[in-house]
Amino acid sequence: MHVDELGSPPPVGTRTAIEAYLHQKIPISAAMGVRVKTATLERVDLWLPLQPNINHEKTLFGGSAAAAATLAAWTLLHLRLTAAGAEPQLVVQRGAMEYKKPIVGDFEATCLFGDTAAWGRFSHTLARRGKARLTMTARLMQGTNEMCAFFGDFVALRSST
Amino acid sequence: MHVDELGSPPPVGTRTAIEAYLHQKIPISAAMGVRVKTATLERVDLWLPLQPNINHEKTLFGGSAAAAATLAAWTLLHLRLTAAGAEPQLVVQRGAMEYKKPIVGDFEATCLFGDTAAWGRFSHTLARRGKARLTMTARLMQGTNEMCAFFGDFVALRSST
Repeated sequence: MHVDELGSPPPVGTRTAIEAYLHQKIPISAAMGVRVKTATLERVDLWLPLQPNINHEKTLFGGSAAAAATLAAWTLLHLRLTAAGAEPQLVVQRGAMEYKKPIVGDFEATCLFGDTAAWGRFSHTLARRGKARLTMTARLMQGTNEMCAFFGDFVALRSST
Repeated sequence: MHVDELGSPPPVGTRTAIEAYLHQKIPISAAMGVRVKTATLERVDLWLPLQPNINHEKTLFGGSAAAAATLAAWTLLHLRLTAAGAEPQLVVQRGAMEYKKPIVGDFEATCLFGDTAAWGRFSHTLARRGKARLTMTARLMQGTNEMCAFFGDFVALRSST
């Protein structure tokens, strides 16, 4: 139940394994109630309940919102790197959240990535220099409404060089 | 054990009450192991253990870092507003994190505020218009080293008008 053991081909359909990986390796994700709803190389959707992430106003705590968005973006990048056979250290360097509307119920953190040109540059730089940076975006959705937007700069560092 | 019941004078020395308030109203703060170390009107220090906030690299999960910083800034603003006799709705509108170095142990989220001119403008605008915005900064410290910096725009909305 360890996504790193999946290797290629792309770990499509491994929602349960990825969820177990997140809960084990990043235990606050279990306390937040994170469920992996979609996990492909183009899209990650995490579902979260409001209750463990609620605040004094009975809306979503901004810190949980930032954590959920960071996790969705990190997960998609991790899946893509694993599928590509690369397992660099992967960390967030910068993150920005825009809180558009208060979230008053269960919600999803969605990250899409389909920019093949940006991915090509990122992969090439990582292979050549052992280090590369990529900006990911994620959104928090309540139903069909976008409630928060996240922009994160992630750095991949090849450890085996 | 509800900080709102404290009213003025300033809730200095109410660390335990504020910790209980956070754990009760923002339950993920209890799962994160947040302890209130300092809570004055000029400074909030939250202490957090690494273990419940750890990631796959055995360093601090970026999402927990953002949540801890957001919470420190929110708490200081909440204390100041409560001490001033104002109890507006208080939400974060924008948040930015810079991750400078990976945190590999227990850490503190520190928020300082001593800008009396900015506070005066904020209070005046809130009283006059029922809505005001203030930028707060917070830092994550491991020992004496600054590991992360946070900048957050908070909005106070008077509900009783």
